[in-house]
Amino acid sequence: MNNSWLKEGERKDKIGFGHLELIQQPKEFCYGIDAVLLAAFAQVKPGARVADLGTGTGIIPLILSHKTQADEIIGVEIQEGSYDRAERNIRLNGLTGRVKIIHSDVKGLLDGGQVLRSSFDVVVSNPPYVKGKEGLTNQNQAKAMARHETTASLPDFICTAAALLKDRGDFYLVHRPSRLVDICVICREHRLEPKDLRMVSPTRSQKPNIVLLHCVKYGGTELNVLAPLSVYDEEGRYTAEIEEIYERY
Amino acid sequence: MNNSWLKEGERKDKIGFGHLELIQQPKEFCYGIDAVLLAAFAQVKPGARVADLGTGTGIIPLILSHKTQADEIIGVEIQEGSYDRAERNIRLNGLTGRVKIIHSDVKGLLDGGQVLRSSFDVVVSNPPYVKGKEGLTNQNQAKAMARHETTASLPDFICTAAALLKDRGDFYLVHRPSRLVDICVICREHRLEPKDLRMVSPTRSQKPNIVLLHCVKYGGTELNVLAPLSVYDEEGRYTAEIEEIYERY
Repeated sequence: MNNSWLKEGERKDKIGFGHLELIQQPKEFCYGIDAVLLAAFAQVKPGARVADLGTGTGIIPLILSHKTQADEIIGVEIQEGSYDRAERNIRLNGLTGRVKIIHSDVKGLLDGGQVLRSSFDVVVSNPPYVKGKEGLTNQNQAKAMARHETTASLPDFICTAAALLKDRGDFYLVHRPSRLVDICVICREHRLEPKDLRMVSPTRSQKPNIVLLHCVKYGGTELNVLAPLSVYDEEGRYTAEIEEIYERY
Repeated sequence: MNNSWLKEGERKDKIGFGHLELIQQPKEFCYGIDAVLLAAFAQVKPGARVADLGTGTGIIPLILSHKTQADEIIGVEIQEGSYDRAERNIRLNGLTGRVKIIHSDVKGLLDGGQVLRSSFDVVVSNPPYVKGKEGLTNQNQAKAMARHETTASLPDFICTAAALLKDRGDFYLVHRPSRLVDICVICREHRLEPKDLRMVSPTRSQKPNIVLLHCVKYGGTELNVLAPLSVYDEEGRYTAEIEEIYERY
């Protein structure tokens, strides 16, 4: 592996999870703990077909390829630059065949004919968090798209997830707690019933800034709220559970 | 004050919050920490009109009469025995005039003509937690009604709260986390937008078993999830925040 993999301004990092390497463009978007938490929260059975909506540089498919025995993982990304990096990340890590990246908007995904309705066991998504274009002051267009709902909104992500999943399939979402009511309402509208919820805080005395949600297509209406997860302890070190999620034993 | 206040099987306890006393019937229902947490969670401005739906023996109106400068507090209770005890509790504590108990089902409350639509600043409720009559094995009918949705269901409580509140009025609810999705969906349907949510756990490493929710009638769609509250510390003592809520300084 040499730097012929890299385009201008990009960098390549060893990110753990076996020996994964990741090409990112720091000017646009670098993956955060949200993606790592979601990949750890998702329960994927051996042989499963998985889709990741808004995959960015493919971080979640990469981690899931290591953490699970999924048969096939599809990442969907609309941004040209991220799509291109995700593509290279799959090849860089020798995952061609098992992981596939589709260059498509989430909204038009089923029209494209590349994936079929009701064909996935698991859908995961770490979508843009900021509603619509509100507060959109980011000069960098690619960065803005990764954070704001510019081309697809939360209902688009949830609606597409519902369409892709088999009956009783699992949807795993990471988002901001401020959107929790929207998420619950929209998921139920699309018959993705919220089953497990976990709040994540920087430290255990702080308010949560991340929510992890597991929904089941056509699931029954009872929510299991898990014990909260803290990222840092009082000394500012990762908690034991976070170290475990990052596989730093 | 002597025991002429008590009927057979009842008991009278000093419960703090100033010098409140409470008549309860242990065979039917004794108040729990949920009611105390809800009364502390509710923000009531001086001069406010407050309604408590499903008031039981009047515990929440009693605590609010001490903690707030509410002008008028109305408790609504359908069970004959609880209604009667709530009535006596108001007289026992010298609160006649400021606190009033109405013997009515939550559903038929507005038809009764005793209270008016859009006339309350704050509505609070600690309703029965168990959905419908599922798992209803409790031999004691009064106890069952306090715990199960026998005469009024969660949508009835929320619908009535919405009807009672003025525009921008505040609704405070305590319930089980397992019903959170139902609560969010039903509140939004009735234009009571969830604004603040707090999870309460026995200890900070355990899953929450109580959820406190604040909604605003016609409020905007953004949820503030507060830091979680733990009832006990590692040594099994009340945490400092719980001691403060119980006013045990």
